[in-house]
Amino acid sequence: MDVALVSRDADKLAPLVAELHSLGRRSYAYGCDATDELATMNLFKMVDFDLGPPDLVVYNCEAFGPGGILDTNPSAFENCWKVNCFGAFLVARGALPAMLKRGRGTIIFTGPTGSLRGRAGFVNLAVGKSGARMLAQSMAREFAPQGIHVIHVVIDGPVLTPMNSDTLDERGQDGLLHPDAIAETMYQLHLQHKTCWTHELDLRPSVEPF
Amino acid sequence: MDVALVSRDADKLAPLVAELHSLGRRSYAYGCDATDELATMNLFKMVDFDLGPPDLVVYNCEAFGPGGILDTNPSAFENCWKVNCFGAFLVARGALPAMLKRGRGTIIFTGPTGSLRGRAGFVNLAVGKSGARMLAQSMAREFAPQGIHVIHVVIDGPVLTPMNSDTLDERGQDGLLHPDAIAETMYQLHLQHKTCWTHELDLRPSVEPF
Amino acid sequence: MDVALVSRDADKLAPLVAELHSLGRRSYAYGCDATDELATMNLFKMVDFDLGPPDLVVYNCEAFGPGGILDTNPSAFENCWKVNCFGAFLVARGALPAMLKRGRGTIIFTGPTGSLRGRAGFVNLAVGKSGARMLAQSMAREFAPQGIHVIHVVIDGPVLTPMNSDTLDERGQDGLLHPDAIAETMYQLHLQHKTCWTHELDLRPSVEPF
Amino acid sequence: MDVALVSRDADKLAPLVAELHSLGRRSYAYGCDATDELATMNLFKMVDFDLGPPDLVVYNCEAFGPGGILDTNPSAFENCWKVNCFGAFLVARGALPAMLKRGRGTIIFTGPTGSLRGRAGFVNLAVGKSGARMLAQSMAREFAPQGIHVIHVVIDGPVLTPMNSDTLDERGQDGLLHPDAIAETMYQLHLQHKTCWTHELDLRPSVEPF
Repeated sequence: MDVALVSRDADKLAPLVAELHSLGRRSYAYGCDATDELATMNLFKMVDFDLGPPDLVVYNCEAFGPGGILDTNPSAFENCWKVNCFGAFLVARGALPAMLKRGRGTIIFTGPTGSLRGRAGFVNLAVGKSGARMLAQSMAREFAPQGIHVIHVVIDGPVLTPMNSDTLDERGQDGLLHPDAIAETMYQLHLQHKTCWTHELDLRPSVEPF
Repeated sequence: MDVALVSRDADKLAPLVAELHSLGRRSYAYGCDATDELATMNLFKMVDFDLGPPDLVVYNCEAFGPGGILDTNPSAFENCWKVNCFGAFLVARGALPAMLKRGRGTIIFTGPTGSLRGRAGFVNLAVGKSGARMLAQSMAREFAPQGIHVIHVVIDGPVLTPMNSDTLDERGQDGLLHPDAIAETMYQLHLQHKTCWTHELDLRPSVEPF
Repeated sequence: MDVALVSRDADKLAPLVAELHSLGRRSYAYGCDATDELATMNLFKMVDFDLGPPDLVVYNCEAFGPGGILDTNPSAFENCWKVNCFGAFLVARGALPAMLKRGRGTIIFTGPTGSLRGRAGFVNLAVGKSGARMLAQSMAREFAPQGIHVIHVVIDGPVLTPMNSDTLDERGQDGLLHPDAIAETMYQLHLQHKTCWTHELDLRPSVEPF
Repeated sequence: MDVALVSRDADKLAPLVAELHSLGRRSYAYGCDATDELATMNLFKMVDFDLGPPDLVVYNCEAFGPGGILDTNPSAFENCWKVNCFGAFLVARGALPAMLKRGRGTIIFTGPTGSLRGRAGFVNLAVGKSGARMLAQSMAREFAPQGIHVIHVVIDGPVLTPMNSDTLDERGQDGLLHPDAIAETMYQLHLQHKTCWTHELDLRPSVEPF
């Protein structure tokens, strides 16, 4: 697939764009704050101009600071919700019109186990991510009959990224989800036959207790 | 119990205050927008001054407008979340310090079935209410060892209030939850022995399909 | 309430019968294997003869031996299911006809957290108890409109019984559910107004992590 | 893959065996009652002899007769449980030893939405299928660290088989799950990288309300 890559800081995406070009795919990087309504609307216009209407959209943003209820500043609480949930809503609104016009498209939201359960200290994560999960369920029920496949993917464990190098030292390669393996599952979900759609599934390393 | 009644419009509460006085209980009405941090903090100071530290706090606010994803204005989406979830967070922060000082207290959040599942057209309800449920779960786990009992009550059905008179005509008395019966269950939850606490339960009319 | 006490070994119940008599209540002890269809049908005939039709029936039987899948003998697997689930079905069938005739009655099944989730080594508990939970849900939906209140009570933690004296030494009084407190919650569930019925709730000590 | 096909009546499988041969795959048909311990153990010995140790085992048996609690004969209740749950346990015990020896293998149980919820009239399905789901969860947690991938697949809707030709007339091709599409998802689950395993997912036609 050709790929539109989006981050608040587009410059960080340059190596990925280069890698995709070397694989013979078109790829563009965009800077966008997903919690900004206008910026998100404009993003989808630019992507449409550069690459055409989207086939598969993945919303994978996360904001989280651990802490108890009394240690959690109301504005931090609100900001985490905006990234974990409100941005997903804006991105869905940006993606849906072109998908509805074509009668097809896949939208994936990712969430942690915290999207299913509220643990002590995880309120900033669980509140927004459970909201995004409800959003995915509402969207799936509203748009499946019109050909739009909406999926909530629960990612239960650390992902193998440079950010998690400490966890890598501690757990070893098998203890972190490999990004290519996550992408492969997402791609297979996108390919599912329309009589056989998944709306929620979990992904975790085989060694992760659950 | 003595009762602090809170609404955005305190004047609406006058008949309830009068009724509680006639039953020999102290009661005060307060005007407060639960989504306003300062107003909520001040509310708990006033209640403490008038009635002392709270034993049982019930957060029962709800905002909802039905509609599909593309019909839902982002600011309406955000406002519904603020009433359904952010206000619950602010009220919890207002109630907890006095409860923690005494090592006891009960906090109840109410939610619809939409706090558990996202149906088409119900996104404005499900997103915030599932967030409040995660908040309740996080708080229960964080504060139970310190003696604070936090409960999420799922109210599945229309409540017998003047607002629901149409539903009353259609369903009859047995088809709506009686407020006194809801209050009785909440009171019994508050009285539960500390070796035997409930953290979530459902309430619905016996004739309500589920 | 007058109480019919049932155990495989009726003799063990004598002290409880005596205690209930000293409180001025009628009480009878019966020996019955709940997994035996004929014995269970006869039990309800005897109780009806001695005390009349039942108002509240509690099924609290549990059989469990921990172990992995390959260490679990198929006949042990089947026997655990019979006690945890099949007996609940037989008891429900024994209790329902008299309740339906009167248009009222409460049936409570208890289950552990294992009725909701299958952990490693807990298969013998989870399989039968999740079955009993599904049975409770089916019954609640089938019989609520006819006035029968069916409830699944999740008991998450050890109960303060002589059998758990080791756990008592380790956790202290606050770490075990007090039987009187469990009974009080069950009684309040039985008293719930029919516009405000609970079908599932959890009970655990405030110090129990969950 | 080479395929071992199993049914109570092996003769019914002849056309499928022929079709697999025509595709160049080895395939054998076996007659086996999955609820018979000895027969199930012998089945795995025969498959091992014919095709070697299993890579992927799918348990897809279902027994169900709709009916209320009082209309359901205890022996029918027990027989449904045996097919829906006990057979899954026996098949898991038959498949695991060879998989554990090799340190890899996939076991899939299928279940209906009734494995998650008990509706009125569906007790014979929900009790056994929820048990099989708990069994899958226990097995996943016990054996994932040893390389065995256990998955519960919720199939929510009718499958396109000759048995469902009436449903086909009513719903059209898009309203039934295509067996090839189910098999494709199962095969992709079997191929998942071990840092990225799914343990539960749902499958339904895009037009199926849920």
